[in-house]
Amino acid sequence: MPHIVIRGITLEQTKEISKPLVEELAAICDCGTDNFTFEVPQSVFIFDGEEVPSFPLIEVKWFERGQEIRDKFAQAITKYIMGTGIQEVEVTFISFAESAYYINGSRCDE
Amino acid sequence: MPHIVIRGITLEQTKEISKPLVEELAAICDCGTDNFTFEVPQSVFIFDGEEVPSFPLIEVKWFERGQEIRDKFAQAITKYIMGTGIQEVEVTFISFAESAYYINGSRCDE
Amino acid sequence: MPHIVIRGITLEQTKEISKPLVEELAAICDCGTDNFTFEVPQSVFIFDGEEVPSFPLIEVKWFERGQEIRDKFAQAITKYIMGTGIQEVEVTFISFAESAYYINGSRCDE
Repeated sequence: MPHIVIRGITLEQTKEISKPLVEELAAICDCGTDNFTFEVPQSVFIFDGEEVPSFPLIEVKWFERGQEIRDKFAQAITKYIMGTGIQEVEVTFISFAESAYYINGSRCDE
Repeated sequence: MPHIVIRGITLEQTKEISKPLVEELAAICDCGTDNFTFEVPQSVFIFDGEEVPSFPLIEVKWFERGQEIRDKFAQAITKYIMGTGIQEVEVTFISFAESAYYINGSRCDE
Repeated sequence: MPHIVIRGITLEQTKEISKPLVEELAAICDCGTDNFTFEVPQSVFIFDGEEVPSFPLIEVKWFERGQEIRDKFAQAITKYIMGTGIQEVEVTFISFAESAYYINGSRCDE
Protein backbone atom coordinates (compact mmCIF):
# COMPACT_ATOMS: atom_id res chain seq x y z
CA MET A 1 0.00 0.00 0.00
CA PRO A 2 -0.70 2.42 -1.50
CA HIS A 3 -1.90 0.23 -4.38
CA ILE A 4 -2.34 2.31 -7.53
CA VAL A 5 -4.42 1.16 -10.50
CA ILE A 6 -3.23 2.86 -13.66
CA ARG A 7 -5.35 3.28 -16.78
CA GLY A 8 -5.09 5.44 -19.87
CA ILE A 9 -1.39 5.20 -20.62
CA THR A 10 0.66 2.37 -22.09
CA LEU A 11 2.69 -0.18 -20.17
CA GLU A 12 5.87 1.43 -21.50
CA GLN A 13 4.76 4.85 -20.33
CA THR A 14 3.86 3.39 -16.94
CA LYS A 15 7.35 1.91 -16.65
CA GLU A 16 8.93 5.24 -17.60
CA ILE A 17 7.06 7.27 -15.00
CA SER A 18 7.05 4.58 -12.29
CA LYS A 19 10.38 5.36 -10.69
CA PRO A 20 10.22 9.18 -10.45
CA LEU A 21 6.51 9.11 -9.60
CA VAL A 22 6.99 6.62 -6.77
CA GLU A 23 9.88 8.68 -5.41
CA GLU A 24 7.66 11.75 -5.37
CA LEU A 25 4.74 9.88 -3.79
CA ALA A 26 6.98 8.34 -1.14
CA ALA A 27 8.27 11.82 -0.24
CA ILE A 28 4.68 13.10 0.03
CA CYS A 29 3.70 10.18 2.28
CA ASP A 30 7.00 10.16 4.15
CA CYS A 31 7.37 6.42 3.61
CA GLY A 32 9.60 4.03 1.70
CA THR A 33 9.30 3.56 -2.06
CA ASP A 34 8.83 -0.18 -1.62
CA ASN A 35 5.33 0.35 -0.20
CA PHE A 36 3.92 1.20 -3.62
CA THR A 37 2.33 -1.15 -6.10
CA PHE A 38 1.32 -0.16 -9.63
CA GLU A 39 -1.27 -2.38 -11.29
CA VAL A 40 -2.16 -1.97 -14.96
CA PRO A 41 -5.38 -3.89 -15.69
CA GLN A 42 -5.67 -5.59 -19.07
CA SER A 43 -9.19 -4.38 -19.68
CA VAL A 44 -11.06 -3.49 -22.84
CA PHE A 45 -12.94 -0.19 -22.91
CA ILE A 46 -16.12 0.15 -24.93
CA PHE A 47 -18.00 3.23 -26.04
CA ASP A 48 -20.77 3.57 -28.59
CA GLY A 49 -20.31 0.05 -29.94
CA GLU A 50 -16.56 0.33 -30.40
CA GLU A 51 -13.39 -0.47 -28.52
CA VAL A 52 -11.84 2.79 -27.37
CA PRO A 53 -8.56 3.67 -25.64
CA SER A 54 -8.35 3.00 -21.92
CA PHE A 55 -9.85 5.87 -19.96
CA PRO A 56 -7.31 7.57 -17.62
CA LEU A 57 -9.14 6.82 -14.37
CA ILE A 58 -6.48 6.25 -11.72
CA GLU A 59 -7.61 4.52 -8.51
CA VAL A 60 -5.53 4.85 -5.38
CA LYS A 61 -6.29 2.18 -2.78
CA TRP A 62 -4.77 3.17 0.55
CA PHE A 63 -5.27 4.07 4.18
CA GLU A 64 -6.63 7.61 4.30
CA ARG A 65 -3.92 10.18 5.03
CA GLY A 66 -5.95 13.38 5.13
CA GLN A 67 -6.80 16.03 2.59
CA GLU A 68 -3.46 17.82 2.35
CA ILE A 69 -1.54 14.66 1.52
CA ARG A 70 -4.36 13.43 -0.70
CA ASP A 71 -4.30 16.66 -2.72
CA LYS A 72 -0.54 16.48 -3.25
CA PHE A 73 -0.72 12.78 -4.05
CA ALA A 74 -3.41 13.33 -6.70
CA GLN A 75 -1.53 16.27 -8.17
CA ALA A 76 1.71 14.29 -8.47
CA ILE A 77 -0.06 11.46 -10.29
CA THR A 78 -1.87 13.93 -12.53
CA LYS A 79 1.37 15.69 -13.44
CA TYR A 80 3.12 12.48 -14.47
CA ILE A 81 0.15 11.06 -16.39
CA MET A 82 -0.34 14.36 -18.23
CA GLY A 83 3.39 14.41 -18.93
CA THR A 84 2.81 11.49 -21.29
CA GLY A 85 0.54 13.68 -23.42
CA ILE A 86 -2.84 12.73 -21.91
CA GLN A 87 -5.25 15.70 -21.81
CA GLU A 88 -7.56 14.68 -18.99
CA VAL A 89 -6.85 12.61 -15.90
CA GLU A 90 -9.21 11.53 -13.14
CA VAL A 91 -7.78 10.32 -9.83
CA THR A 92 -9.91 8.78 -7.12
CA PHE A 93 -9.09 7.39 -3.69
CA ILE A 94 -10.55 4.23 -2.17
CA SER A 95 -9.80 4.09 1.54
CA PHE A 96 -9.33 0.78 3.24
CA ALA A 97 -10.15 0.46 6.95
CA GLU A 98 -7.27 -0.77 9.09
CA SER A 99 -9.82 -2.94 10.92
CA ALA A 100 -10.57 -4.76 7.67
CA TYR A 101 -7.00 -5.04 6.38
CA TYR A 102 -4.84 -8.03 7.25
CA ILE A 103 -1.13 -8.56 6.71
CA ASN A 104 -0.20 -12.21 7.05
CA GLY A 105 -3.44 -12.82 8.91
CA SER A 106 -3.03 -10.00 11.46
CA ARG A 107 -5.41 -7.04 11.49
CA CYS A 108 -3.73 -3.69 10.91
CA ASP A 109 -5.57 -2.03 13.83
CA GLU A 110 -4.18 -4.44 16.39
CA MET B 1 -18.14 8.82 -14.55
CA PRO B 2 -20.18 6.77 -14.12
CA HIS B 3 -17.56 4.09 -14.74
CA ILE B 4 -19.20 0.70 -15.30
CA VAL B 5 -17.31 -2.58 -14.97
CA ILE B 6 -19.00 -5.26 -17.06
CA ARG B 7 -18.63 -8.99 -16.43
CA GLY B 8 -20.52 -12.05 -17.58
CA ILE B 9 -21.16 -11.20 -21.22
CA THR B 10 -18.82 -11.21 -24.21
CA LEU B 11 -17.04 -8.21 -25.66
CA GLU B 12 -19.25 -8.42 -28.73
CA GLN B 13 -22.37 -8.43 -26.57
CA THR B 14 -21.02 -5.47 -24.62
CA LYS B 15 -20.49 -3.56 -27.85
CA GLU B 16 -24.02 -4.36 -29.01
CA ILE B 17 -25.72 -3.14 -25.85
CA SER B 18 -23.35 -0.24 -25.18
CA LYS B 19 -25.07 2.41 -27.29
CA PRO B 20 -28.73 1.85 -26.32
CA LEU B 21 -27.80 1.16 -22.69
CA VAL B 22 -25.75 4.34 -22.35
CA GLU B 23 -28.56 6.35 -23.93
CA GLU B 24 -30.99 4.96 -21.38
CA LEU B 25 -28.57 5.53 -18.47
CA ALA B 26 -27.86 9.09 -19.62
CA ALA B 27 -31.62 9.79 -19.69
CA ILE B 28 -31.99 8.37 -16.15
CA CYS B 29 -29.08 10.53 -14.89
CA ASP B 30 -30.06 13.53 -17.00
CA CYS B 31 -26.49 13.86 -18.28
CA GLY B 32 -24.61 13.47 -21.54
CA THR B 33 -23.77 10.04 -22.98
CA ASP B 34 -20.08 10.93 -23.09
CA ASN B 35 -19.82 10.72 -19.29
CA PHE B 36 -20.02 6.94 -19.35
CA THR B 37 -17.15 4.48 -19.48
CA PHE B 38 -17.57 0.73 -19.92
CA GLU B 39 -14.64 -1.40 -18.78
CA VAL B 40 -14.51 -5.13 -19.49
CA PRO B 41 -11.78 -6.72 -17.33
CA GLN B 42 -9.78 -9.57 -18.86
CA SER B 43 -10.03 -11.76 -15.79
CA VAL B 44 -10.16 -15.51 -15.33
CA PHE B 45 -12.87 -16.91 -13.08
CA ILE B 46 -12.24 -20.07 -11.08
CA PHE B 47 -14.66 -22.37 -9.30
CA ASP B 48 -14.08 -25.82 -7.88
CA GLY B 49 -10.69 -26.23 -9.54
CA GLU B 50 -11.86 -25.21 -13.00
CA GLU B 51 -12.03 -22.08 -15.14
CA VAL B 52 -15.66 -21.02 -15.38
CA PRO B 53 -17.48 -18.31 -17.36
CA SER B 54 -17.17 -14.77 -16.07
CA PHE B 55 -19.74 -14.12 -13.35
CA PRO B 56 -22.19 -11.29 -14.26
CA LEU B 57 -21.28 -8.97 -11.41
CA ILE B 58 -21.60 -5.42 -12.70
CA GLU B 59 -19.92 -2.68 -10.67
CA VAL B 60 -21.01 0.92 -11.08
CA LYS B 61 -18.45 3.43 -9.81
CA TRP B 62 -20.08 6.85 -9.51
CA PHE B 63 -21.10 9.74 -7.34
CA GLU B 64 -24.18 8.67 -5.40
CA ARG B 65 -27.41 9.96 -6.98
CA GLY B 66 -30.01 8.65 -4.53
CA GLN B 67 -32.13 5.57 -4.36
CA GLU B 68 -34.69 6.36 -7.05
CA ILE B 69 -32.06 6.95 -9.73
CA ARG B 70 -29.98 4.04 -8.43
CA ASP B 71 -32.94 1.66 -8.74
CA LYS B 72 -33.66 2.74 -12.31
CA PHE B 73 -29.99 2.61 -13.22
CA ALA B 74 -29.61 -0.96 -11.87
CA GLN B 75 -32.80 -2.06 -13.60
CA ALA B 76 -31.70 -0.67 -16.97
CA ILE B 77 -28.37 -2.49 -16.74
CA THR B 78 -30.11 -5.69 -15.62
CA LYS B 79 -32.55 -5.53 -18.53
CA TYR B 80 -29.81 -5.17 -21.14
CA ILE B 81 -27.54 -7.84 -19.62
CA MET B 82 -30.45 -10.27 -19.34
CA GLY B 83 -31.39 -9.44 -22.91
CA THR B 84 -28.22 -11.25 -24.00
CA GLY B 85 -29.58 -14.47 -22.48
CA ILE B 86 -27.95 -14.30 -19.03
CA GLN B 87 -30.22 -15.71 -16.31
CA GLU B 88 -28.88 -13.91 -13.24
CA VAL B 89 -27.32 -10.47 -12.94
CA GLU B 90 -25.91 -8.74 -9.88
CA VAL B 91 -25.36 -4.97 -9.95
CA THR B 92 -23.55 -3.10 -7.20
CA PHE B 93 -22.70 0.55 -6.73
CA ILE B 94 -19.42 1.91 -5.39
CA SER B 95 -19.77 5.56 -4.48
CA PHE B 96 -16.83 7.88 -4.80
CA ALA B 97 -16.62 10.93 -2.55
CA GLU B 98 -16.33 14.25 -4.40
CA SER B 99 -13.75 15.26 -1.79
CA ALA B 100 -11.54 12.36 -2.88
CA TYR B 101 -12.06 12.69 -6.64
CA TYR B 102 -9.79 14.85 -8.75
CA ILE B 103 -10.17 15.95 -12.35
CA ASN B 104 -6.90 17.28 -13.74
CA GLY B 105 -5.65 17.74 -10.20
CA SER B 106 -8.68 19.71 -8.91
CA ARG B 107 -10.93 18.26 -6.21
CA CYS B 108 -14.55 17.82 -7.30
CA ASP B 109 -15.91 19.40 -4.10
CA GLU B 110 -14.15 22.70 -4.68
CA MET C 1 -20.95 -13.10 -3.14
CA PRO C 2 -18.47 -13.15 -1.55
CA HIS C 3 -16.51 -12.18 -4.65
CA ILE C 4 -12.79 -12.72 -4.11
CA VAL C 5 -10.12 -11.08 -6.26
CA ILE C 6 -6.94 -13.16 -6.18
CA ARG C 7 -3.49 -11.78 -6.96
CA GLY C 8 0.03 -13.02 -6.37
CA ILE C 9 -0.33 -16.69 -7.22
CA THR C 10 -0.67 -18.44 -10.56
CA LEU C 11 -3.90 -19.57 -12.18
CA GLU C 12 -2.88 -23.18 -11.60
CA GLN C 13 -2.26 -22.49 -7.91
CA THR C 14 -5.61 -20.72 -7.70
CA LYS C 15 -7.33 -23.77 -9.18
CA GLU C 16 -5.58 -26.08 -6.73
CA ILE C 17 -6.58 -24.13 -3.63
CA SER C 18 -10.03 -23.11 -4.88
CA LYS C 19 -11.98 -26.17 -3.76
CA PRO C 20 -10.61 -26.65 -0.21
CA LEU C 21 -10.47 -22.90 0.40
CA VAL C 22 -14.08 -22.35 -0.66
CA GLU C 23 -15.18 -25.25 1.54
CA GLU C 24 -13.43 -23.67 4.50
CA LEU C 25 -14.83 -20.20 3.74
CA ALA C 26 -18.35 -21.58 3.31
CA ALA C 27 -18.08 -23.28 6.72
CA ILE C 28 -16.90 -19.99 8.28
CA CYS C 29 -19.81 -18.08 6.69
CA ASP C 30 -22.29 -20.90 7.22
CA CYS C 31 -23.40 -20.68 3.59
CA GLY C 32 -23.23 -22.79 0.44
CA THR C 33 -20.02 -23.13 -1.57
CA ASP C 34 -21.79 -21.91 -4.71
CA ASN C 35 -21.96 -18.36 -3.33
CA PHE C 36 -18.25 -17.80 -3.93
CA THR C 37 -16.60 -16.33 -6.98
CA PHE C 38 -12.84 -16.22 -7.53
CA GLU C 39 -11.62 -13.65 -10.02
CA VAL C 40 -7.99 -13.57 -11.17
CA PRO C 41 -7.31 -10.27 -12.96
CA GLN C 42 -4.94 -10.33 -15.91
CA SER C 43 -3.03 -7.27 -14.80
CA VAL C 44 0.59 -6.23 -15.21
CA PHE C 45 2.44 -5.04 -12.12
CA ILE C 46 5.16 -2.43 -12.41
CA PHE C 47 7.83 -1.38 -9.97
CA ASP C 48 10.91 0.74 -10.54
CA GLY C 49 10.59 0.67 -14.32
CA GLU C 50 10.17 -3.09 -14.58
CA GLU C 51 7.38 -5.64 -14.74
CA VAL C 52 7.28 -7.48 -11.44
CA PRO C 53 5.29 -10.47 -10.18
CA SER C 54 1.69 -9.85 -9.20
CA PHE C 55 1.49 -8.54 -5.64
CA PRO C 56 -0.54 -10.83 -3.32
CA LEU C 57 -3.25 -8.32 -2.46
CA ILE C 58 -6.49 -10.25 -2.05
CA GLU C 59 -9.71 -8.24 -2.12
CA VAL C 60 -12.88 -9.69 -0.64
CA LYS C 61 -16.04 -7.97 -1.86
CA TRP C 62 -18.96 -8.98 0.33
CA PHE C 63 -21.67 -7.96 2.75
CA GLU C 64 -20.02 -7.25 6.09
CA ARG C 65 -20.34 -10.19 8.50
CA GLY C 66 -18.63 -8.80 11.62
CA GLN C 67 -15.11 -8.94 12.95
CA GLU C 68 -15.02 -12.52 14.19
CA ILE C 69 -16.04 -13.99 10.84
CA ARG C 70 -13.86 -11.47 9.01
CA ASP C 71 -10.80 -12.49 11.01
CA LYS C 72 -11.36 -16.19 10.33
CA PHE C 73 -12.08 -15.50 6.68
CA ALA C 74 -8.84 -13.51 6.25
CA GLN C 75 -6.84 -16.14 8.08
CA ALA C 76 -8.18 -18.97 5.94
CA ILE C 77 -7.28 -17.10 2.75
CA THR C 78 -3.86 -16.22 4.16
CA LYS C 79 -3.16 -19.85 5.08
CA TYR C 80 -3.98 -21.17 1.60
CA ILE C 81 -2.11 -18.42 -0.25
CA MET C 82 0.95 -18.87 1.96
CA GLY C 83 0.67 -22.63 1.42
CA THR C 84 1.72 -22.00 -2.19
CA GLY C 85 5.04 -20.61 -0.96
CA ILE C 86 4.17 -16.89 -0.88
CA GLN C 87 5.87 -15.09 2.02
CA GLU C 88 3.56 -12.12 2.50
CA VAL C 89 -0.17 -11.84 1.91
CA GLU C 90 -2.44 -8.84 2.33
CA VAL C 91 -6.19 -9.36 2.54
CA THR C 92 -8.68 -6.50 2.49
CA PHE C 93 -12.46 -6.39 2.64
CA ILE C 94 -14.68 -4.12 0.59
CA SER C 95 -18.20 -4.09 2.00
CA PHE C 96 -21.14 -3.63 -0.28
CA ALA C 97 -24.32 -2.06 1.09
CA GLU C 98 -27.44 -4.21 0.68
CA SER C 99 -29.28 -1.01 -0.28
CA ALA C 100 -26.96 -0.60 -3.26
CA TYR C 101 -26.83 -4.24 -4.36
CA TYR C 102 -29.32 -5.61 -6.85
CA ILE C 103 -29.99 -9.20 -7.86
CA ASN C 104 -31.97 -9.38 -11.08
CA GLY C 105 -33.02 -5.78 -10.54
CA SER C 106 -34.27 -6.19 -6.95
CA ARG C 107 -32.54 -4.41 -4.08
CA CYS C 108 -31.11 -6.77 -1.45
CA ASP C 109 -32.55 -4.72 1.44
CA GLU C 110 -36.13 -5.12 0.27
